[in-house]
Amino acid sequence: MTETTSLAVAMIGLGSMGLGMAKSLLASGHTVSGYDVTASATAALGDLGARACTSPADAAKGAQIAVVVVVNAAQTEAVLFGDNGIVPAMVPGGVVISCATMAPDAVRALAERCSQRDIHYLDAPMSGGAARAGTGELTFMASGSPHAFAVARPALDAMAGKVYELGETPGIGASFKIVNQLLAGVHIAAACEAITFASKLGLDIDKVYEVITASAGNSWMFENRVPHILEGDYAPKSAVNIFTKDLGIVSDIGRTETFPLPIAASALQLFLATAAAGMGRDDDASPARLIAQITGINLPQAKEH
Amino acid sequence: MTETTSLAVAMIGLGSMGLGMAKSLLASGHTVSGYDVTASATAALGDLGARACTSPADAAKGAQIAVVVVVNAAQTEAVLFGDNGIVPAMVPGGVVISCATMAPDAVRALAERCSQRDIHYLDAPMSGGAARAGTGELTFMASGSPHAFAVARPALDAMAGKVYELGETPGIGASFKIVNQLLAGVHIAAACEAITFASKLGLDIDKVYEVITASAGNSWMFENRVPHILEGDYAPKSAVNIFTKDLGIVSDIGRTETFPLPIAASALQLFLATAAAGMGRDDDASPARLIAQITGINLPQAKEH
Repeated sequence: MTETTSLAVAMIGLGSMGLGMAKSLLASGHTVSGYDVTASATAALGDLGARACTSPADAAKGAQIAVVVVVNAAQTEAVLFGDNGIVPAMVPGGVVISCATMAPDAVRALAERCSQRDIHYLDAPMSGGAARAGTGELTFMASGSPHAFAVARPALDAMAGKVYELGETPGIGASFKIVNQLLAGVHIAAACEAITFASKLGLDIDKVYEVITASAGNSWMFENRVPHILEGDYAPKSAVNIFTKDLGIVSDIGRTETFPLPIAASALQLFLATAAAGMGRDDDASPARLIAQITGINLPQAKEH
Repeated sequence: MTETTSLAVAMIGLGSMGLGMAKSLLASGHTVSGYDVTASATAALGDLGARACTSPADAAKGAQIAVVVVVNAAQTEAVLFGDNGIVPAMVPGGVVISCATMAPDAVRALAERCSQRDIHYLDAPMSGGAARAGTGELTFMASGSPHAFAVARPALDAMAGKVYELGETPGIGASFKIVNQLLAGVHIAAACEAITFASKLGLDIDKVYEVITASAGNSWMFENRVPHILEGDYAPKSAVNIFTKDLGIVSDIGRTETFPLPIAASALQLFLATAAAGMGRDDDASPARLIAQITGINLPQAKEH
């Protein structure tokens, strides 16, 4: 455990989230080295004054902390233990801060393999978009050993507005995130269904937005995503494919645990239909476009993106 | 159109909402006469200093305004046009403020029949519970003629924190309310599914409530209803049967308009299952109890009510 507050941090995955988080770490005085499979993303990190590296292992060399911000469990495993993986390259006793949303069982398996190499695993899925990543205001739903939290603290403080410490075992953070994603996915699907239904009823959907956001039918997602529909802006702030993945994890756990989840299942099907119709990489408000296409209602014209 | 701000108001339907609204009207200096099919409810109005009446027609005699706060379209029709109905008894040019959630088509039909008797129909479904009814802080999603709004204004001001004026045609208010109820119903169903799923995952559900209400998975209904589950309090603040009714209207309109609503349909089925299991008159957070019974998870013990 280090007493200095300036850490050597490896940042693996430099999409809009990872790059923003690197910015926040640099702004707090940490040393950042980073890698992304996309060369231009790695180069963008270099432009910020961090060390642009040629592999995950290169970025992790001598790092006390590695922040892994990739899409899923398979990518996280590859970053940790694949060719040029980070775990063998890190300082013993170092901490992996793992941010991808994945099944709790997958988290527990990765954490176990890390501990065999004297690397601590902080299960730290996050909430908040790219803007909040760049300003160090993310929310982490985190679990892990007290040691992992203590070592990671200065890095977490640089990236987060709020860190929920949810338990000492990796997997708990993932479970909280999965419950959040169940709700978030259902609420987006419901928002898309409701706003198109409102249009079918002949209502002014701008006015519907105003009234609903002040009423008991509101949700965080309705308030955040419906403006994309009203503006016809389907450039992906977060993509449909994220929810086919996350609600897919929810569905998998439901079957493994023999726990019926009919509302989440219905939302998953709507996201799958939207992806099947070719909008998987578009904004997750796109189910509204699919419903409009099917039913023949007119939504605000979608902009090019 | 009257220039005085003290109106003679008939209040028909004196449940927890209607009685609270009567209180707000009295507090603003209006004269209130009222009736409920349940004699004790009518008597409770008398205890407030209003005139307790023997029929809807008796309450409406000479009234400029009649506020109808019953459960559905059938009850509203009976109050307006049934035996001892209010419409023939009201002052010509008077206004019916109709608050039940019903299908827009049903509203339009009632409004048309009213207009043939020189009575104006203000389509004014509301949002906000009994507490806000009593303090004059309801929200109305209202549509009707400028005349109806002008005459009703002092009464609306007494009962409402906010009046949305959504158009000049009855039915528009009902359509907004139906869209709100679609979302509200789905969000309650999703909250019940998510909080029980969280329990199945072994999470501390009090902590889940804390984290979710600060995260993107939050909804107005999650925040408002999950405490009922955490406290085991299923005394009906709003009952399961309200949502079998309101999501039933949503479902009916979907079929009439050939507009698929799979998310709302899924929520409706969960409320129907909960009612079928004997909890129709219990609080609308009761789907959580049904899911717990089916799946064998332990929620906080339900209190007697």
